[in-house]
Amino acid sequence: MEASLLVIGDEVVSGLVKEINITLLSRILEKYGIKVRMGLCVRDHPDEIKKGLDVLMKQTELVILTGGLGPTPDDITLKTVSEYFNLSLVESPELLSSLPCKLRTQAMVPEGAEYFKNPYGTAPGFLIEKEKSRIILLPGVPSEAEAILPEILEYMGLKEEKIKVVIRTFEIPEVRILEVLSAVLSPQEIKGLSFLPGNDGVRIWIKEGDVEDIRERIYDVLEDYIYGEGDETLEKVVGRMLKERGFTLACAESCTGGLLMDLITNVPGSSEYFMGGIVSYSNESKIRELGVRRESLEKHGAVSEAVAKEMAQGVRELYGTDFGLSTTGIAGPTGGTGEKPVGLVWMGISARDETRAQRRVFKGKRRDVKEKAVYFVLNMLRKYILDLERTSG
Amino acid sequence: MEASLLVIGDEVVSGLVKEINITLLSRILEKYGIKVRMGLCVRDHPDEIKKGLDVLMKQTELVILTGGLGPTPDDITLKTVSEYFNLSLVESPELLSSLPCKLRTQAMVPEGAEYFKNPYGTAPGFLIEKEKSRIILLPGVPSEAEAILPEILEYMGLKEEKIKVVIRTFEIPEVRILEVLSAVLSPQEIKGLSFLPGNDGVRIWIKEGDVEDIRERIYDVLEDYIYGEGDETLEKVVGRMLKERGFTLACAESCTGGLLMDLITNVPGSSEYFMGGIVSYSNESKIRELGVRRESLEKHGAVSEAVAKEMAQGVRELYGTDFGLSTTGIAGPTGGTGEKPVGLVWMGISARDETRAQRRVFKGKRRDVKEKAVYFVLNMLRKYILDLERTSG
Repeated sequence: MEASLLVIGDEVVSGLVKEINITLLSRILEKYGIKVRMGLCVRDHPDEIKKGLDVLMKQTELVILTGGLGPTPDDITLKTVSEYFNLSLVESPELLSSLPCKLRTQAMVPEGAEYFKNPYGTAPGFLIEKEKSRIILLPGVPSEAEAILPEILEYMGLKEEKIKVVIRTFEIPEVRILEVLSAVLSPQEIKGLSFLPGNDGVRIWIKEGDVEDIRERIYDVLEDYIYGEGDETLEKVVGRMLKERGFTLACAESCTGGLLMDLITNVPGSSEYFMGGIVSYSNESKIRELGVRRESLEKHGAVSEAVAKEMAQGVRELYGTDFGLSTTGIAGPTGGTGEKPVGLVWMGISARDETRAQRRVFKGKRRDVKEKAVYFVLNMLRKYILDLERTSG
Repeated sequence: MEASLLVIGDEVVSGLVKEINITLLSRILEKYGIKVRMGLCVRDHPDEIKKGLDVLMKQTELVILTGGLGPTPDDITLKTVSEYFNLSLVESPELLSSLPCKLRTQAMVPEGAEYFKNPYGTAPGFLIEKEKSRIILLPGVPSEAEAILPEILEYMGLKEEKIKVVIRTFEIPEVRILEVLSAVLSPQEIKGLSFLPGNDGVRIWIKEGDVEDIRERIYDVLEDYIYGEGDETLEKVVGRMLKERGFTLACAESCTGGLLMDLITNVPGSSEYFMGGIVSYSNESKIRELGVRRESLEKHGAVSEAVAKEMAQGVRELYGTDFGLSTTGIAGPTGGTGEKPVGLVWMGISARDETRAQRRVFKGKRRDVKEKAVYFVLNMLRKYILDLERTSG
């Protein structure tokens, strides 16, 4: 089955809200075996919504609309869609009974449509069946849309299945991956791949061909760079490795300012292995909290191998953990020098027996530098744990 | 002038990458006085790209494509667009000279088109003029597209101007805003507003009417809830308030796990007022680092008013700052009880003379709870500083 998405809202095509519904809903639909053909964002004007429906109804039998179902006057989706399909709006006593008076508009349902209650807000979702077409309406708030869509798909008799193969690599650029894969895959097979570069590495998506066989050959030549598949982010993979081995972790962040620990603690259950850490944005706090030596700061500067190592070791000792990670660098946009440019980051890892640091100069804006440093240091820890086992095994 | 956007890539309509180009590029175009009519995401197949061009070329004279300009075989945008407009591809000696051999494809330019070099990657941007239409091609990596687009717009003779009025509120729900505004605005004026709710509050966008006059009346009734306009995020506003007054800040985070400090340090120059802080994910670290009393933890639990206050005070004293902020709560998805449900967060603020804490139960998923708590505690600090001045003034 194929679907198309219609995202409604002036705020979307004005850049006022981050449009993430196409991503979120496509991801859910893929899991239910539905391929998204097109995603279209339009302004919340009746003519634009109708024009969008004209385009998409020709493409796919399933059309999913999101946005403009709320209680304010700029929410016109329900009315416009009802007009488009020539359906009257009927007040649902059941919906009405669960709403305060002032939200009465939120109890209207197009005749013949099914409605699906919203666990986080007042706007329900709807399923309209009209001849061969099915139209799903979802609220525009992503967490609400994401909660309601699976319910509607299951009501339609669909089941969740996982079929997609996406391999996650780190520390190898797209062009180098392509060279390496040319040795084991045919040009036709390579054409069936998509390469998705990001601050967390390059993902390889096997879209066509004998997926299992291609995957195996990719592993043959890239295994050292592969850290996971599908939704297995670096923070999840590293978290699982720590948890399985009973290891604990603490972090000392300078230029990444808390992002490393934020990512680690986005993983549910992270409190089992993550003990905490320090964000030290000043030299004094590096000395006082982490035991960095004043001499190291004076001789090498805060952004240096010596300080990265002392931070990692200091935080490990402070928290009594198996591992300590650290970052110290120049995130920009200012503060760089010829010798220490913007983007320069030293990242440290400390274990019971040894402490190491690595240097990189990351390209991009302040946020990119922060993200690249955080993933790099997570990957340092991943490789360190793997090496431990290789040498001991 | 109006424009439409065509975002190209299977990964986009499969949910494999976060599609943010529509948001980013719309925001830039708005600043240059260009209104985006539609944004369309299609798969990277020649037929789909051509179908997308068919739809959008009818809508607007300016069409901007992004994605599929890279060096791998799934990058087919340049070839497809050249075919569509019947242009041959010519190798540019200047581009070629700046590239390694294996990236030769990145030196091709459609005949008659202008190219614009990419500061962060190898794929350039292009401007094609064809009869009345102008077509812009941009790489799909957001930071690259965002860097090249303004250059092309300026080449086209456009200038950046700021015209949009978006008012940012916090701690007042959409429906309540609507009630309050009904007293000072006509139904017609209210229809010209858009309400954009998020974890950082509700933004009110004045889209039509006498913008300055409407803005003034909105301030009359909502001033207490308004913290900024346009791009002024809470972290920027609070940062500026601290900086202007010479105040310093430290943070102690439990359930928000570093997100608060990550946001604060996303603001360039934050090292002037932000000294650092602690992420304490265990009771022991709360006691050892922050001086939280064991008795408080035992009597009230880690998620309590007493602990939130001791964390805020402890981190303020440790870093010798003017203010300390703290969060402690249950981010979920598990760990809640009847008395302390998932989403419960205590947030503390400590100043030289006093320490306070506030309790909230936030709805949503783990990430939503973290975000809502972080914005709430930033707003506590904002209000505290304002109150200081009211009482002393």
